[in-house]
Amino acid sequence: MKVTVCRKAHFNAAHRLHRKDWSDEKNEAVFGKCNNPNFHGHNYELIVAVTGEVNAETGYVMDMKELSDIIEKEVEKPFDHKNLNLDVPEFANLIPTAEHIAYVIWHKLRKVVAAELGLEVTLYETPRNFVKYNGL
Amino acid sequence: MKVTVCRKAHFNAAHRLHRKDWSDEKNEAVFGKCNNPNFHGHNYELIVAVTGEVNAETGYVMDMKELSDIIEKEVEKPFDHKNLNLDVPEFANLIPTAEHIAYVIWHKLRKVVAAELGLEVTLYETPRNFVKYNGL
Amino acid sequence: MKVTVCRKAHFNAAHRLHRKDWSDEKNEAVFGKCNNPNFHGHNYELIVAVTGEVNAETGYVMDMKELSDIIEKEVEKPFDHKNLNLDVPEFANLIPTAEHIAYVIWHKLRKVVAAELGLEVTLYETPRNFVKYNGL
Amino acid sequence: MKVTVCRKAHFNAAHRLHRKDWSDEKNEAVFGKCNNPNFHGHNYELIVAVTGEVNAETGYVMDMKELSDIIEKEVEKPFDHKNLNLDVPEFANLIPTAEHIAYVIWHKLRKVVAAELGLEVTLYETPRNFVKYNGL
Amino acid sequence: MKVTVCRKAHFNAAHRLHRKDWSDEKNEAVFGKCNNPNFHGHNYELIVAVTGEVNAETGYVMDMKELSDIIEKEVEKPFDHKNLNLDVPEFANLIPTAEHIAYVIWHKLRKVVAAELGLEVTLYETPRNFVKYNGL
Amino acid sequence: MKVTVCRKAHFNAAHRLHRKDWSDEKNEAVFGKCNNPNFHGHNYELIVAVTGEVNAETGYVMDMKELSDIIEKEVEKPFDHKNLNLDVPEFANLIPTAEHIAYVIWHKLRKVVAAELGLEVTLYETPRNFVKYNGL
Repeated sequence: MKVTVCRKAHFNAAHRLHRKDWSDEKNEAVFGKCNNPNFHGHNYELIVAVTGEVNAETGYVMDMKELSDIIEKEVEKPFDHKNLNLDVPEFANLIPTAEHIAYVIWHKLRKVVAAELGLEVTLYETPRNFVKYNGL
Repeated sequence: MKVTVCRKAHFNAAHRLHRKDWSDEKNEAVFGKCNNPNFHGHNYELIVAVTGEVNAETGYVMDMKELSDIIEKEVEKPFDHKNLNLDVPEFANLIPTAEHIAYVIWHKLRKVVAAELGLEVTLYETPRNFVKYNGL
Repeated sequence: MKVTVCRKAHFNAAHRLHRKDWSDEKNEAVFGKCNNPNFHGHNYELIVAVTGEVNAETGYVMDMKELSDIIEKEVEKPFDHKNLNLDVPEFANLIPTAEHIAYVIWHKLRKVVAAELGLEVTLYETPRNFVKYNGL
Repeated sequence: MKVTVCRKAHFNAAHRLHRKDWSDEKNEAVFGKCNNPNFHGHNYELIVAVTGEVNAETGYVMDMKELSDIIEKEVEKPFDHKNLNLDVPEFANLIPTAEHIAYVIWHKLRKVVAAELGLEVTLYETPRNFVKYNGL
Repeated sequence: MKVTVCRKAHFNAAHRLHRKDWSDEKNEAVFGKCNNPNFHGHNYELIVAVTGEVNAETGYVMDMKELSDIIEKEVEKPFDHKNLNLDVPEFANLIPTAEHIAYVIWHKLRKVVAAELGLEVTLYETPRNFVKYNGL
Repeated sequence: MKVTVCRKAHFNAAHRLHRKDWSDEKNEAVFGKCNNPNFHGHNYELIVAVTGEVNAETGYVMDMKELSDIIEKEVEKPFDHKNLNLDVPEFANLIPTAEHIAYVIWHKLRKVVAAELGLEVTLYETPRNFVKYNGL
């Protein structure tokens, strides 16, 4: 009996989409207003989905309190009220697109969520734009 | 041509997470504030997803009115404004975690939704905690 | 320059609508399924709105962190994962209808929110039923 | 590294569920109030999900601006503020159920979204009824 | 002790904004795509807010079940899955703009909600466009 | 017959709460993590409410298309994907708290919305924090 349990979290951050090895013209052409040198920002909403067998004794796949604490430590603390480009080491050389942010979050969580559990993250950059990543 | 059709429903219920065969200390350690002996409660939001071939004549996988009636009979009537632990026989010996509630709902619906149709339930215990179960 | 600042919070609780001085028949007739002796429950969503002059130095009517802490202390801690009828002293002799819960919350907050600030609470019992109270 | 990127859009339209080759009685029996000869309508919410490799240079699966423009051209322009039965050629001989609308949208988008990208559409007819189609 | 109690409801309808006494050009200039002769439609979401003294015995301003029944009879039954222009007598000579629909609903409800209670309606035509009317 | 018509819009921006005439310690003590020198950001959701007489001919208080265009010109174009502190002249010497942003938006709109119409803005900084300003 496999169930997927999901926990929602959020963080508010600034970012900029920009490649130093490209000209200003190319950055502008590819990233448009997301290339603003002074940054812009989002209220990111994150859903972490963990899939596994239900423990017969507790009725839990995983204690949601534990999952919530993991998300706080791995994502909310280091990302919330931060500039992703300047304050978060993972993006020193990785453009913080929604795709890349989801990828980074998934890898941070993968290290601390039990290996036998499936893991997928959904990241809303805005209520109208969101991405999903499950490690495949 | 297979399409998944989804119907949202809801019920408001009280519950408690507790094992009689555990000490109070262990119940407290595992279930925390969800172990309150006087119960607490939630507005559960349920999404039932049914997957199947679209009927060439009607353009329906399944009449949403029929699905809605099934959910009302199998879930809303027996669960709404009830204490899951005390009023719902399925939880007499099964802890009503979100995982188990989804499991019970899925099995109740599986008996009455046509066998050739795929079935998945998503159950929101709160807007921040939810689970999915599809029988696997 | 007066601005209203609003903060959203939530708590999950069980309750029952029942008057001991009424017969079972009258309780059933007036409160219907909300009279279930075993209780039912809700995810209450609370919006606290505070109106006042904007501080010229900080640009704040009130620090949202402070308002959030007040709501946690006065409402979330004592109400969350509780049975309103049995665990919350204010409802020992007051039926916990949404109207009364909003009334109790408003009076608890009124004592600790600065007197020169206007105060209104909105309480969602479900996404479809909600109440507002501002002390008038 | 495969990521799914999703974009939300919407259109407001009238429609009617009706088969000319059926009697009024059969139409009424099968389609109920959706068979109203004067039409009714919905605010359709559409989520388009595109799955593919993340481009190593841009960090994008696909430019969301491009996807948004495609949706506007293929779906919003021809469907918004229209009568699906009378104004949209695809439904001249196809009942505009949610299943069929999702099917038509998917096929319109499939022609213009790069072939190596996976494609799924989710269409909300109301907040309580929605369908998913991915071409299988 | 005055509290406002609110109840949410919904109906799905087709409509068209058009004046017969205007030329097609003027109708097009003023109402744009809302003037489509074949109609378009919306999922209207309605919030009815009733303000009054809380009954000391019941803790209710008004039984939400009663308010819900009133809304069903006065609004949902006559408006849901209808063409507002063709099927609803109130709009035979009144353009069904959101403003006018709110006005009509308010007057229908005002006749059946107790006179000592304040009444306001909020009508969402889309999640992005909505109106409020309170009889003033 | 006075009706309030509301239009929702949004913009994504970076900001920082900071006073140059305060020490770092005082900025940190008052503004906490919102004082991050590298900025953070939000998806701001804006609701503009306009109150006035309904035009007897059109059934409109104000053409929503016109209101939408005004919001785009006065708010979305200058604020979206911008750093409020660095890119928006109004905040060169005004801390961009939600209160101040609402104040600035209200004054920008007040100049272009007809003087006989009432005007209120609601600004969501996050789904949990929002402010209202109506010029009083």
